Amino acid sequence: MNRTMDVFFFIGSVFTYFAVMRAEQAAARDGIALRWRPFNLRAILKEQNNVPRNNPVKLAYSMRDAVRRAARHGLPFREPLPYPVDPGLRANRVASLAAAEDWCLPLARSLYTGWFRDSIPPHDPGLLSATLLQLGKVPDAILTQADAPSTHERLAAETDAARALGIFGAPTFVWGNEIFWGDDRLEDALAWAKAHPDG
Amino acid sequence: MNRTMDVFFFIGSVFTYFAVMRAEQAAARDGIALRWRPFNLRAILKEQNNVPRNNPVKLAYSMRDAVRRAARHGLPFREPLPYPVDPGLRANRVASLAAAEDWCLPLARSLYTGWFRDSIPPHDPGLLSATLLQLGKVPDAILTQADAPSTHERLAAETDAARALGIFGAPTFVWGNEIFWGDDRLEDALAWAKAHPDG
Repeated sequence: MNRTMDVFFFIGSVFTYFAVMRAEQAAARDGIALRWRPFNLRAILKEQNNVPRNNPVKLAYSMRDAVRRAARHGLPFREPLPYPVDPGLRANRVASLAAAEDWCLPLARSLYTGWFRDSIPPHDPGLLSATLLQLGKVPDAILTQADAPSTHERLAAETDAARALGIFGAPTFVWGNEIFWGDDRLEDALAWAKAHPDG
Repeated sequence: MNRTMDVFFFIGSVFTYFAVMRAEQAAARDGIALRWRPFNLRAILKEQNNVPRNNPVKLAYSMRDAVRRAARHGLPFREPLPYPVDPGLRANRVASLAAAEDWCLPLARSLYTGWFRDSIPPHDPGLLSATLLQLGKVPDAILTQADAPSTHERLAAETDAARALGIFGAPTFVWGNEIFWGDDRLEDALAWAKAHPDG
């Protein structure tokens, strides 16, 4: 019986903030473990001509919606939020390394806290290094590894996996063949998983 | 004190189904009246190059999400759903007339029930006529009036009002200057209205 739900996410997605901060606890209440899988959402958005900046009306709304939902979840949100972030995908590649081990969620939490609470974009070298130090890592070693071809390939492979699942946004929760897009579908995803324990 | 929440909607929007079927009762529990305002969402989507059919991956997901949410809300959803519908906007123009009087919500409920439960698109002449008869109207007279220039103009004026509010999708709930997009934001909208009674 499958008791692990995959969470495809992208450091740069605004609504991933809420999932990073609250999904683990919610899932644990249902006895479900989460596997955090960073992928290159930006590549998929470009393929689908679905780039948020191309629709400023919708983007402005999304930011306002995120501010209101942060308040509902009791999470800090300092405006204006730096956006977009991680242009070179380095933060996402560090997350890709972390996902191969067991420190992906604490990494994401630290980077998202820096981004939303302190207005420091997640690719900021100081934020990245401080976060890695807190996690007991050697920043230079990790950052060098993050820039290696094998890490680029890992992120690309996870992006392929996301595309194959029909994923087009983040966060996306996956249970068997069902995908649930958006932090606001976390409860739907958990309810589905409970009703369909064999995926 | 403003106790009326506007609901901008479009007969053709899949997620408007849920709002049409459940929002009135939810709002009434909070002592809030709803004003149903049909507009031409299709025109705004085209302006923003945000046409659902242009992203088949996202559209397929949205349909699946809607099927799952119908089940959660205990509402019928017969697959495959006719889509897109109301190419000539006649159903929306009839709704525009209805909104000028007091029969917009019952009209929308009947058309959406035909569409989702019985696979009859809302612009179907038989469904429109049967619905109008049920509502005590003379179908031929209403349909003639729906095709008159003044009704086209009324729908266009409401579309202008929607655009001015920053609306880009349906349903959208409006309270003061705050807009809440999607049936899944109904609870957020009502909570906001309760917390900000003066809009």
